[in-house]
Order: sequence, then structure tokens, then C-alpha cells
Amino acid sequence: MKVRNLVGERFKERPSDCVVDSHALMIRGGYMKPVANGIFSLFTPGKRIMQKIERIIREEMDALDGQEVMFPVVLPGSLWEESGRYQSVDNTLVRFADRNGTPMVLGMTHEEASVQLVREYGATYTRYPFMIYQIQTKFRDEARPRAGLIRVREFTMKDAYSFHTSQEDLERYYARCLRAYERIYARAGVPEVISVAADSGMMGGSISHEFMLLTPVGEDSIVICPECGYRANMEAAEVIVENETVTPAPLTKVHTPGMKTIEDVAAFIGVPVTHTAKAVIYQKNSDDTLVVVFIRGDLETNETKIKNALGEAVHPAALGEDSPLVAGFTGPVGLPEGVTVIFDRSLQGAQNLVCGANEADYHYTGLNPERDLKDMHYIDVAKAVEAGVCPHCGKKTLTIARGIEVGNIFQLGTKYTQTMEMTYTDENGESQYPIMGCYGIGVGRLAASVAEVRHDAYGPIWPISIAPWQVEICCLRSDQEAVKALADGLYEELEKAGVQVLYDDRDVRPGAMFSDADLLGAPVRVIVSPKNLDQGVVEIVTRDKQITVKAPVAEAAAEVRRVMDTLQKAIDEKVPERL
Amino acid sequence: MKVRNLVGERFKERPSDCVVDSHALMIRGGYMKPVANGIFSLFTPGKRIMQKIERIIREEMDALDGQEVMFPVVLPGSLWEESGRYQSVDNTLVRFADRNGTPMVLGMTHEEASVQLVREYGATYTRYPFMIYQIQTKFRDEARPRAGLIRVREFTMKDAYSFHTSQEDLERYYARCLRAYERIYARAGVPEVISVAADSGMMGGSISHEFMLLTPVGEDSIVICPECGYRANMEAAEVIVENETVTPAPLTKVHTPGMKTIEDVAAFIGVPVTHTAKAVIYQKNSDDTLVVVFIRGDLETNETKIKNALGEAVHPAALGEDSPLVAGFTGPVGLPEGVTVIFDRSLQGAQNLVCGANEADYHYTGLNPERDLKDMHYIDVAKAVEAGVCPHCGKKTLTIARGIEVGNIFQLGTKYTQTMEMTYTDENGESQYPIMGCYGIGVGRLAASVAEVRHDAYGPIWPISIAPWQVEICCLRSDQEAVKALADGLYEELEKAGVQVLYDDRDVRPGAMFSDADLLGAPVRVIVSPKNLDQGVVEIVTRDKQITVKAPVAEAAAEVRRVMDTLQKAIDEKVPERL
Repeated sequence: MKVRNLVGERFKERPSDCVVDSHALMIRGGYMKPVANGIFSLFTPGKRIMQKIERIIREEMDALDGQEVMFPVVLPGSLWEESGRYQSVDNTLVRFADRNGTPMVLGMTHEEASVQLVREYGATYTRYPFMIYQIQTKFRDEARPRAGLIRVREFTMKDAYSFHTSQEDLERYYARCLRAYERIYARAGVPEVISVAADSGMMGGSISHEFMLLTPVGEDSIVICPECGYRANMEAAEVIVENETVTPAPLTKVHTPGMKTIEDVAAFIGVPVTHTAKAVIYQKNSDDTLVVVFIRGDLETNETKIKNALGEAVHPAALGEDSPLVAGFTGPVGLPEGVTVIFDRSLQGAQNLVCGANEADYHYTGLNPERDLKDMHYIDVAKAVEAGVCPHCGKKTLTIARGIEVGNIFQLGTKYTQTMEMTYTDENGESQYPIMGCYGIGVGRLAASVAEVRHDAYGPIWPISIAPWQVEICCLRSDQEAVKALADGLYEELEKAGVQVLYDDRDVRPGAMFSDADLLGAPVRVIVSPKNLDQGVVEIVTRDKQITVKAPVAEAAAEVRRVMDTLQKAIDEKVPERL
Repeated sequence: MKVRNLVGERFKERPSDCVVDSHALMIRGGYMKPVANGIFSLFTPGKRIMQKIERIIREEMDALDGQEVMFPVVLPGSLWEESGRYQSVDNTLVRFADRNGTPMVLGMTHEEASVQLVREYGATYTRYPFMIYQIQTKFRDEARPRAGLIRVREFTMKDAYSFHTSQEDLERYYARCLRAYERIYARAGVPEVISVAADSGMMGGSISHEFMLLTPVGEDSIVICPECGYRANMEAAEVIVENETVTPAPLTKVHTPGMKTIEDVAAFIGVPVTHTAKAVIYQKNSDDTLVVVFIRGDLETNETKIKNALGEAVHPAALGEDSPLVAGFTGPVGLPEGVTVIFDRSLQGAQNLVCGANEADYHYTGLNPERDLKDMHYIDVAKAVEAGVCPHCGKKTLTIARGIEVGNIFQLGTKYTQTMEMTYTDENGESQYPIMGCYGIGVGRLAASVAEVRHDAYGPIWPISIAPWQVEICCLRSDQEAVKALADGLYEELEKAGVQVLYDDRDVRPGAMFSDADLLGAPVRVIVSPKNLDQGVVEIVTRDKQITVKAPVAEAAAEVRRVMDTLQKAIDEKVPERL
């Protein structure tokens, strides 16, 4: 492909709406163009990266005995009624009526469609296990698309569904799939992606993992223990809190005029915030009734855990004039009726706490929950903190990192097969529900994430395995016949050898040519110029500047391929074996 | 792939809702499964055929210097407002509001999206011509999906858009693209696909072609002149009618009690139907006002031509009690006011016609339109007929055939660039609108069409270029160790050589194995059996029964590849050269 013919524009100015580098560089490099909020068209360079990632994914799925299928983008609402998700999923799911008034949805995930496809095939145990997958467009009407291809509304996703006759079989397969995912990331040039325990959310099931690419621009917080290797998404990380044992003090009401934040109260009374019980007030999304969470004053609540505990979603409360709660002074003693109360596990064993007295300008001191409150039970709804206790090894070693979720896998159990009445006959002639796993990976998000962790100020540094083109030939002074002839010949020779080459033979200044090449990010660059030709060489430079060689003209193509091999080998070395 | 692991069921009974064979066979063979009316999921065999066709299309588009891009499935309604199609397209276009109430549509074609993508890139003449294409899911809310993948609501389509600075350049490119389409069909194993002149419909532009695969189950009627090669879709075929010159008779009202059809009237009066002017009554879709078309009694009206003449769609009229028209007796003399009248060209030069008198139970004889009617002008709104006059060579040689439209290409002109304000600066610094072409092909419809013209009673006979697997090994009596070992070895050897092999080593009766193989349609079948093994051979049979050979065991793999080559060569021979 000649750069002069490549459709799409490259430019210098960082678009003002780009908050992350990968987004800015992929717009500036002519990889994509926004069409609507969170919806992009891809130019050829973007499309080529997608295709290369898709190929890697396909090979790994096929190696897992996966069979590629295709589900529709538009699904009948009745299919989602079967699983119950037509009602339970929020308006991220696009619902519309077709010309006959039939409710339809845009597929945001395809558990229902997969069960529908194999319901008859999977009627007998002899056909298990099996896995089907697709690579296809999905639409989720996200409230806050951001960061280019990292969080969009329309995206290309590989989604796979496996079916099993026992939990053990699912777990064996799940482990193979987890390894296949590690291979995919390594092959795509980001072997540093880690798997973390995750919350299963709307998918159902219990065990799930997310794959995280650590970067400060990531949306997710990940809890990591460098000591023992424990890793979990903040949403799923168990929190362990230690409280000292002290001599119980009596419960005493104290005047705390205007002290509405827990920090103010603690300072006013003269205790550390760890000796307070903070009230965090929510309302249920369904009916706006109040939910009060009591948690140790130094900790934050984790809304996902609260949602899981309640079985429904909540939002921060807006307390009006007529609220039964006294904002800033809410406490567990003497709470009004009709309020759902959650005690975080951080209060277990805590003593002599400061808490609100449910009366303006008053707090209690000396709260001893086990003594002063009835029917106590504690639930973990806190967020993990730096230097917190690792739930696995027990050391105070936790660290918190930011990451982009670039894939997730779930043990779904029988949620979908039960609700959708998919059964098989087992060895004994009994009817059973198959056990499912599902395995997702966003192709565009992975592409953008790679750019996010592999770029410099001038453009992306694509790993050779997913680069839109492996090599770019920059012909400086294409107006000079000998230079042009050499570059033309090299282009032809490499293309004939199956190398994917971008060829810049435009009559532009070297600066313009190189800045375009930086934006297009081909991992190997060949510079053909009068100066090099005088020395009888071409210059071969990798995009990451790690390799620079001058190769004799006659050796040029062979040397290019050697450099390509070196880059590919560096990737291959980090790919773990299949399980 | 082993047949024992292939997800999907094969069965004997023809599903009752299948009216065409390809539909029945693709359901029976486990290629696909319906999810909703006109919406299918594809099993692996179906998906593999699609991928092979897509690869052929991709190669041909790339050879036309096409650049693969990707547009979104979900597009903002505002983009379709720009072209005017948000309003003008009927409810085949799915419209919905996103979570913020923004109007969105499901892409049914991507002219708007293509202009949006290249509006900035195409700002200067030096960048022309260029072509971009995508292969992607589209949704059209068809009123009457039918015939399996032949007319669906959701489908995979390759759509390409070319941009030019002159009509001549567009025409040159258009010719190359037409040839590329001929190559695609030939490479997919249906070289008999013909191009025909077409009506441009909602796409706009003037010149367009459809590609037709002739088969009695086709939805389209095609007008063909075997003498000169003229070919057009019925919707676009010009109709030429000859009328004899006779001595004019006077206009005379006659009593025709109860004679409501033109055949009855002609018989009652004793003239051939060619001597009558029939009234065909429509109403405009927009406001239900009446449109009366007068046409020679032996001909049918063509609604597409009527729509094009009026610039809006019509439907057959429902005449109530209070209608100003007298059903069965409507004629051109003394028509009530406020009715739109169209005279078909078949009445031009016609004399002494019988027609309605706009009065119950009365007709006129002796109508001479040029004498009896004012402000006459004639428009061609008739359907071509068998043995009609060829508009190209003038002979009465026309034949009418049925076909499936498997592709279409359009010269769009500046319809989209003008409405969407895409301009470029020409050599003289003047602002101009680029001229566009667009080029579509439905992947699934082509797959189903191939099955429709390449099948027998037992299953599809896939051309080797698009078959899901090239070879199927049938191992009869896999319980016999030597037989199984031979089949296993052959499977491994062929797979290693890159041949796509389906391997049936199930312990089932030969009848069941062969009927499954017939449904899966691999073009080359290898039969490994005790009887063959006794003779030291394997049997190699093509699915179309044209080749049967017994190859010595040691030669088996080589012979399979020779047979494959023979089949591929037969396809290659019919592929025309690129332009």
C-alpha cells in the first residue's frame, strides 16, 4: 500500500476531546473517525489491526476445539424474556419494536442466543462438552462512552460459550481458556496483562476473571498482593480489617454543633477516624427507599458489593427536608423504621466508636456495636485500601493499581440453561441442565489498550504481530531516479515475499514523512535516501529505536526480514504453552 | 473436524415452512437456525461458507485498489437527515431513540457513512479516485422475509463506495467493478450469473446493474433478448409496442351490462384485447389520491415505473361507494377532475379502442386517443412480455426468466455528495462535488443462491471454492482397527497438507453416514471401508458423481489432491480476466 493512496488524514494537533493518548493518536493517525458519541468508523489501518487481533483470537479459540458460529445482532425480545434479562438489564440494552410491533433488542452479549442455537443439539450427554464462539458487532448503550475505542457503544467482540455436564469439566475447560487468553494477550504484544478475580455482575454465575492491562488511564481499580500473587478487581476484592480490643466506654451523647463530616467530628472529639462509624446513605433504584450503610470512618463503600448484598442496584441518596434521616448525624442507635441497614465487616469487633445520634448537632461516643445494637450481622461492602490486609496471605501488603479490562471469563453455572429450559439426558436417562461458561474479549478495546501502553509522543509503537503493516519504506527524495528505483524494487521484493509493506514515495519533506510514519507505527522502517545510497546501504530502524542497522543494498530485503523475525521472536518467547 | 464433534443437527424431514430447496437443505444440514422471522444464527458449516465467499470478495475488491474500512451498524439519524433519506425511506429502515433520546437508525446501506468518513480526506482533487469497502452486518426490516438466507432482515453484505472527479472516470471504474463482480460469481462456482440493467430505486443515480442468478425460484423477472444480448430487470426494461394503422371509427357509447373485466368486454364486443384501453387504478401512498393508468388491454402495469414517473409510491386502489370512479367502467373520456392520469406508451398510435365510459354498464368503442383526448403524452409504465419487441435490436425476441439478485452496482452521481455538502477543490481552485459509485453484494444470499442452483435431492453440491470443507473422509466400520488406522492416517496427512477435511469416524450405518455427507456437501468424498481395504484401495467420489476413482492406499492423499485440483481448475477456467 502506498501512503499517497491511503484513505484517511494524519495531523499534528491533539483533538480537544481526547483524554487518553491512544484515543488521540488513533484519531491523529487516521485509524478511525467518530460518527456519534461512542460510535466510530474505522479507516483501513484500524481495520487491519482488528483483523490481525481477530486472527490470533480465532486460532486460540480453534485450538480450544471452539467452533465458530454467528449469532444475529438483532434479537427478538422474547429470547431475553426467557432468561429474564429483558426486564432485569438496564437501558444499556437497546429495545425497539420492528415494523410489526414485535419487541426486539440489539445483542449486547449472546448467552440467550447460544442456548437457543444448541438447545436441540445438546439434548444428550454424549455430545458434551462443546464450545461455540463468534466474532461480531455488539451494541451497548453506555451512559458514558470515553477514551476512544476503550469504552464505546458499538464494538467488535469475540464471545464464546461452552457447555458441560459437570462443574469439574467446566473448571478444567475454564483453566484452558484462561491460558488461551494469556496467550492471546502475549501474542498481541502485551504479555503483561494479568487475570484478576472479578464480580460477575449481570452475567450471573459465581466465579469469574477479568484480564487487566495495567495503566494509569484504566477505569478499573485492581487490588494486588505482591507477596502472594492475590489479584482481584476492587469490585470483588474481599476486605479484611483489624480492630484493637480496648476497655469498653459507656454510650454517651455529645454536642457536635455543625460537625457533618466524619473527619470534622473525629477532629472535634479528638479520636482517629478509625474510631468512628460513618453512615453512607443510598436509595434503592427500584423504589427510592433508604439504605444506610455503616462503615468504619476511614473506609469507602463499594457499590457493587452493596448491590450484590441487596440483590438490586442503589444510588447515593438525595435527602430532602422531610427525610426521616438527619444528614450528617445519622447513626445506628435509634434509627427510624423502614430503613434498610447494612453493617460493614469493618465494624466487627470495633469498640468505643463515634457515630451520629440521629439528631441534629449530636453524636454518640462509646458505641460498642455488639453491646449496643441488636441482631447484628456484618457484610463486607468496603473498598480495599493500600497496605490493607491481603485476604489470601494475611499480610498488610495490598497495593491498588489502575487497569483497563481487556477480557473476561465467567463460570455461569446453570443460570441460562435453567431459565431457558435447555436439558440433556444423562447416562442414567435422567434430565439435567448443562453447565455453561462464557468468555468475552473486545477486539477494538484490546487494540486501543495496546496503543495506550505501547506509544511515544509521536505515535503508536505497534507490536509486529498486530501492526497494520509490518514494514514502512520511506523514500527520501523520490524525485531522484536511482533512489526511487531502489525503493520501488525493495517494495516489490518485500511484497512478493508476503511482507505487508507501507511505501511512502511522496515528494514531501523528511520531517513530514517521518511524522506520518510515526503515527502509522509500522514496527520496522526502511529509509532509502541519497545519502544512504551513496554509501551503498539502506537504513533499517525499528519503531521503538531498539534496533538500527545499515544493510548493504543487496542485503536489504533479507535484513528487513531478519529484523522482523527478531521482533516476532521477542513476542513468541513470552507466549505461555497451551494447557 | 470430526463429524462426531460438529455442533448442529442434520435430519431428513423437510421443514414445513421451507418453500425453496436451498432453505430446506441449509436447515436440514445444520448450516443455520432461525431466531426470528428473517433472522438466523449460523452454525459452523454456514459460517465457513460465508468466510470463504468473503475472502473471494476481499481479494477482488483489493485488486480494484479498494481499501477495507468498517462503518457502524448503528448510525445517528442526523446523518440520514443530511441526505434526506431519514424521511424518504420507508419503515424498512429501523429507527429508534438511544438512552438520551437521540434518533438512531440501523444501517441498511452506508452511502451517508461513507461520505461522512472521507469528507475531509477527499477535499482536494489529487486524492481521487479512491474506493473504500466493508463487509458487515446490515439490517433491513423487510415486510416479507422468505426463502431462508435469500431474503432476510439481517444479513452480511459487502458494500463499496468509489469517489471520482469525472463521469468518465466513474464509468471506467464501474466497468472494472462489473468485471470484478463477474469474477466473484465465477470464483464462487456460479459463472452463469448475468448482469442486467436495473432500476436504481431508493439509491438514486441513473445507471445501475443487477447480477442475476437464473432460477425458477427467483423473486425477480428478467427480460432477455437472446438475439442481441439485451438484459434488464423487469422493473427497468423498456417496453416497445407496435400498433397497426386502421381507418378511424367514430367514438360510440355501447351498452355492456355487467362486463367489468377487459377480457369480458372484448369478448362481448368481439374485438381482441389488444384493441382495448384498460384502466388500472392506484392511490398515492402519501395522501390516497387517485391515479388512473390507461394501458393496452393485453399488457400489465409496472409499479416501479409508475413510482418513478410520479416520484412517489402507489398502491392498488380500494374504491369505496362514494368514489368518483366507476369500477370496471373507467375510461379516459369524461374522467372526473382531481385524478392523476397516466397514459402508457402502448396506447400511442393505437386506434379504434374499446374503453370504459365512466358510467355503469357502458363502454366506448372507436376511441382514437390522438383525436379524442387533449394534452396527450405517453410514458412507458408497462411490463415487458414474452416475444415482445427488444428495445435494443428491435426484434420480437424477448424472453422472460426468473432470477435471484445476487449483487448490484450503481452510478450514484452527486446525490449524496451534494446533499451532504462534500466538495473538493479541482485543478483550477474551484469547488466541485465528487461523483460516486456504489457496489453491493449479499454474502449469505450468494451462499444460499449457490445451493439453490447446485444441489440434488440429498443436499447441496458446494463448489470446492466455497465448500465448508473440501474433503470428507467416510470411515465405514471404524470399529475395525485396520480400517480406522487407515482413515485416521489419511485425515492427519491431508490436514497436515492444509486440506480442509471433515472426518466421519462414527460407528453408524453407511446410509446414515452418506446422507449426512450429502447434506454437508463436501465436493470430494473418500470412502475407507473393509471392502476397499481388502483391495488395497480407497474410493474417491466427487459429490456431483462426475469423478469416481479407486486409488491405491499409498496414493490416496495424492489422488485426493489431484481430484481437488481438477475441481478447482474447472472453476478457474470460467473466471474472466480482470479489467
